Amino acid sequence: MSRNRSTAAALTGLAVTAALSLPARALADEGMWTFENFPAAQVKEKYGATIDQRWLDRVRGGVARLDNGCSASLVSPDGLVLTNHHCVTTCIADRSSPERDLLAKGFLAQNRALEERCETDRVSVLVGTEDVTAKVTEATKGLQGAGLAEARRRTRTQLEQACEDASKEDRRAGPLKCETVELYQGGQTWLYRYKRYDDVRLVFVPENDVAAFGGDPDNFQFPRWCLDMALLRVYENGKPARTPNHLEMDFAGPAEGQATFVAGHPGNTERLLTVEQLLTQRNSLIPFWLVRNVELRGRYLQYARTSPEAERQVATDLFGLENSIKVRREQLDALLDERLFAERRAEEAKLREYLAKSPELAREVGDPWADIAKAQQTYRNILQPFTFVEGGAGFGNSVLFTRARQLVRAAEERAKPNEQRLREYTEARLPALRQTLGAQVPIHPEVENIRIAFGLARMREFLGPDHPVVRRVFGNASATDIAEKLVAGTKLADPATRTALYEGGAAAVQASEDPMIELARSIDAEARALRKRFEDEVDGPTTEAQGRLSRVRFAALGTNTYPDATFTLRLSYGAIAGWREGERTVPAFTTLDRLFERATGQPPFRVPQSWESVKARLDLATRFNTSSTHDIVGGNSGSPMLDAKGNVVGLIFDGNIHSISGTYWYDAELNRAVSVNTQIMREAMSKVYGADALLKELGAK
Amino acid sequence: MSRNRSTAAALTGLAVTAALSLPARALADEGMWTFENFPAAQVKEKYGATIDQRWLDRVRGGVARLDNGCSASLVSPDGLVLTNHHCVTTCIADRSSPERDLLAKGFLAQNRALEERCETDRVSVLVGTEDVTAKVTEATKGLQGAGLAEARRRTRTQLEQACEDASKEDRRAGPLKCETVELYQGGQTWLYRYKRYDDVRLVFVPENDVAAFGGDPDNFQFPRWCLDMALLRVYENGKPARTPNHLEMDFAGPAEGQATFVAGHPGNTERLLTVEQLLTQRNSLIPFWLVRNVELRGRYLQYARTSPEAERQVATDLFGLENSIKVRREQLDALLDERLFAERRAEEAKLREYLAKSPELAREVGDPWADIAKAQQTYRNILQPFTFVEGGAGFGNSVLFTRARQLVRAAEERAKPNEQRLREYTEARLPALRQTLGAQVPIHPEVENIRIAFGLARMREFLGPDHPVVRRVFGNASATDIAEKLVAGTKLADPATRTALYEGGAAAVQASEDPMIELARSIDAEARALRKRFEDEVDGPTTEAQGRLSRVRFAALGTNTYPDATFTLRLSYGAIAGWREGERTVPAFTTLDRLFERATGQPPFRVPQSWESVKARLDLATRFNTSSTHDIVGGNSGSPMLDAKGNVVGLIFDGNIHSISGTYWYDAELNRAVSVNTQIMREAMSKVYGADALLKELGAK
Repeated sequence: MSRNRSTAAALTGLAVTAALSLPARALADEGMWTFENFPAAQVKEKYGATIDQRWLDRVRGGVARLDNGCSASLVSPDGLVLTNHHCVTTCIADRSSPERDLLAKGFLAQNRALEERCETDRVSVLVGTEDVTAKVTEATKGLQGAGLAEARRRTRTQLEQACEDASKEDRRAGPLKCETVELYQGGQTWLYRYKRYDDVRLVFVPENDVAAFGGDPDNFQFPRWCLDMALLRVYENGKPARTPNHLEMDFAGPAEGQATFVAGHPGNTERLLTVEQLLTQRNSLIPFWLVRNVELRGRYLQYARTSPEAERQVATDLFGLENSIKVRREQLDALLDERLFAERRAEEAKLREYLAKSPELAREVGDPWADIAKAQQTYRNILQPFTFVEGGAGFGNSVLFTRARQLVRAAEERAKPNEQRLREYTEARLPALRQTLGAQVPIHPEVENIRIAFGLARMREFLGPDHPVVRRVFGNASATDIAEKLVAGTKLADPATRTALYEGGAAAVQASEDPMIELARSIDAEARALRKRFEDEVDGPTTEAQGRLSRVRFAALGTNTYPDATFTLRLSYGAIAGWREGERTVPAFTTLDRLFERATGQPPFRVPQSWESVKARLDLATRFNTSSTHDIVGGNSGSPMLDAKGNVVGLIFDGNIHSISGTYWYDAELNRAVSVNTQIMREAMSKVYGADALLKELGAK
Repeated sequence: MSRNRSTAAALTGLAVTAALSLPARALADEGMWTFENFPAAQVKEKYGATIDQRWLDRVRGGVARLDNGCSASLVSPDGLVLTNHHCVTTCIADRSSPERDLLAKGFLAQNRALEERCETDRVSVLVGTEDVTAKVTEATKGLQGAGLAEARRRTRTQLEQACEDASKEDRRAGPLKCETVELYQGGQTWLYRYKRYDDVRLVFVPENDVAAFGGDPDNFQFPRWCLDMALLRVYENGKPARTPNHLEMDFAGPAEGQATFVAGHPGNTERLLTVEQLLTQRNSLIPFWLVRNVELRGRYLQYARTSPEAERQVATDLFGLENSIKVRREQLDALLDERLFAERRAEEAKLREYLAKSPELAREVGDPWADIAKAQQTYRNILQPFTFVEGGAGFGNSVLFTRARQLVRAAEERAKPNEQRLREYTEARLPALRQTLGAQVPIHPEVENIRIAFGLARMREFLGPDHPVVRRVFGNASATDIAEKLVAGTKLADPATRTALYEGGAAAVQASEDPMIELARSIDAEARALRKRFEDEVDGPTTEAQGRLSRVRFAALGTNTYPDATFTLRLSYGAIAGWREGERTVPAFTTLDRLFERATGQPPFRVPQSWESVKARLDLATRFNTSSTHDIVGGNSGSPMLDAKGNVVGLIFDGNIHSISGTYWYDAELNRAVSVNTQIMREAMSKVYGADALLKELGAK
């Protein structure tokens, strides 16, 4: 399962209500519900579980977000955080070296002093929400195009700034981070307040061989045998943070059929895009993404063959890439299924029919479908230059190019009043940027070379050799020569250099002769122009029209529905269950014995020596991974699975193959979430890793 | 433009008549016409050109096919053959070595004794055709499923065998090669007789830098500056063949607006597939192909970075791969265009309407659409195992695996009566197979490693680690280990070993402990079972139902139409013309001056030193490449462009980007063929290459 990797698709991941669910699905375990609007009565009726406000408040306090795109939970009073191994592979790789490969060997801090800082990780806990829809509506009333996009941007930044300023006065909770979220886009804007921890340390991870047993072949498959767990600890002022709101672990695990709950941060769904938006995804976004990134996979795999060190350097990127490829492939399959479009067309027809009978509403909302269609046509037209030049794909989204772009833009944006800045450079976001720029993490020159040469080659292929940006960037050189000169010449791999440029502001950046800075500067005007077109002519009008559309939905179908996922806190409900796959029944649990039977001795089917050597002492009937009916999606990785008492009985790490089409619809018969059973966590931590102190901290008896 | 690479798509490339062209297209330069059914009256009316039987016979005698997938023409009385550089890159690579890189340096035989054998090339000239539809219909009457597929296979083999036997008695023309062709599939089966030359030698090629100037970025683009030409010579009994039927060259080139003709062997079009067949292409075949082969591109590109020798080893494969990727991408775009499906659905509705009014015909033909839909569903279900196991994609279609498969199957098939064999092992096809097996051509172990490891990894990904073939092939090893063991252990790179195994027959193959032979043997039962399912349940029923469908078409719309392309001889007509691209007019010709202006000094935009050093003496106004309205497709590469007198005024080597959707429809406004102008051929051969003897042989004044 993926972390919530941002994509061009996510940029217009417009959230709308799911009110048009077919009756057959009404009783299914569908929905990623906000805590403000959880269908407690429906759950009570179906499962007999009582989810009251106290339950919701308690769980909210114990659930966390890894800001890099995962979910997590607080599981001890001293700041222990439970998440997936695959959510912390960047930290693991950053803490590794050719001589000390933590991905291969795993890691267990023998005491707290030996816990190691994850330089670029941040953990956020949602502490409060506020509906600010009325304020945004007021600020954008009657505006269109550039004016609309600008007013929405300005208003969101102002709301966030005011919220953060106010929190600094709050002695008990503050200071907090504030983020606006667009739910039921245009229908609702919310302000979310987070307690944020930016000192996060690595406590325990098993070897990659068992965390990701089965590798890419088994990814999104079930049955599975993955100990995809990691323990981090959040610190404040150099000491373990006090986290009294943590969740309790239950190492007995759940029973088959038991009602359970998944609380986490699903990244992105597209369940109620209009037909025209779906066509953009099917015809443009996804094929364009696949046909580039599958090539990058090939380049990485071939580079990995050259040495074990090369293999180590690309392991983390490769995991993410292969995961995303599988997601995109299955999403494309879902979009190519004629039934999806038939259903959406029928839904649109129903809403139009309702509107035809409601002349007053019709006058107010106009034809949002037509407005969206127009914006989508523009999107398809600018998609390629937008992706390569503004999106950074023309430079392979390399780390060094990304840092150069951030430095060039931060210098320019910080000189502006806060509410006029690009959203990623507002005061609320600068601390995270400073952390990233200052982080002492390895950057591998040859991997950078691969990414940049790849990006340049594809930019020239798609935009053509005569595109002005292509001509300027290429000059008379080849893609590989350009990449090698940039990577050899830039000093941006050094955090001190980056920090100095950041602190030096516009003057320092303007004076810099660093070739990567020069590159970022040289294309920034074109990149910003494309960004502006996207915001003014695509994202702005689409969002605004989706707002009118959601008014039609609310009017026609009521508001007791969930918004599309937005990488904000949600709660899903369901039961522990397998499914029928054709003629075959897939059971809900796997057990430890089959891990050993399935092993081949070669990655990705190799059981670590640490397990083999204690095999005789292990309880081979221990439950390993679990299948359940919860409606989840990428970003939910690391989510706790809770029983009706709110105790942790599992750790979400994946979905089955059918869960990927969950981006577009929830299939109650086939869509399954996949989690690590708490039984195997205890068995492995105790008998394989000797992590008894941690187990005790986790409350194991 | 691609050579006609065979694909899974081509396996069901069912040809049907284009009778349902919309009226708007009736006057367009549409159609790849058989010589038996050329619309001479229409051409006379539109262009004033007279194409009579004498013209057709004369041209047919001078047009040739490179059996590897290209077109060509005979252009001197002593067997000179004109085709594209990109059609002979395999020969160029086979004749090269690390010390002697003919792709980089070009080649000119200073005299005939220095012309070099292309070991695996064959040249065929069509000398006669016969409609054998009635015989096939009679032999398959009333049959279904396995019986139908078997009867069709047997009948075709018998017809070919009888034809070849008869030709051996013909002192004037024989012996000939005979091939059955299914046109208007089920509607017509034809027997084509070819004069075949299997001694083909390399005479002249320019440097790749100018033959493929612009490389992959410019492929399928226009304006262009490619001297994509090659001269070969066919030999008989060790001497240049006498070819009195050759075409004459006209080095003045064509004029803008002039009516011209393209005679060649277009490979494959899918213009009248049913909606269900198109869905197979859009949803299954093309995405599945792309998502694998784009990765292989990445692996090749990364390998090419490791050394100039590595780059040389993959250059030819990479050219073909990148070309195919561009084709597939554009085909997918065409299939994702809703208008294509809307038009096809409307066409099917019209035919059903006609059928509803013709009860007698309706009783005879049943519901061919439903029968095709059923067969297509089976196709989609078996596509992945069929492609990996029978199609060889699970072993990266590596050369060594392919030879092993051929040896294993030839041993088994040759023991059967001719008409019971798989079609590629009939007596008529064995000479070509023996030539391939005995050819002394380089096989690069690391390229084989890449292909095999890639194929194995994807087979495991798509079929899953628990598929029986995957389990057996992988055992407890990794994809790269398996590949390396196979490639290091096999002796099949040696032509003497291959020939000995072939001549040794079943006993030798059965006794062989060569690991590649063992691999091919170990999966042959599963592979053959998949082949049988494909033939009995997909290809057979689809072909048979398309036959019934074409009866409906003929009845409803008449027979004055062209069949889909089948890599057999066709004639297209049109005019020299550019087109309008949005607001821009693309002119019909490019000239030499812009080649130098566009050069960057780096591949793929580097002009060879041979040109730079004589630049001052070149006529920079010389016409270089030409755009024209001819309806062509991959396989037409190397086709002569002829004026109304039948003289060669150009050499087809590509189409513009819009020509790729020509697989599915001809767009008169945008679809353009791209050719090498004869002006630049003479200028370069004379002033750059000093090929005056050849120019003289070509009749240049």
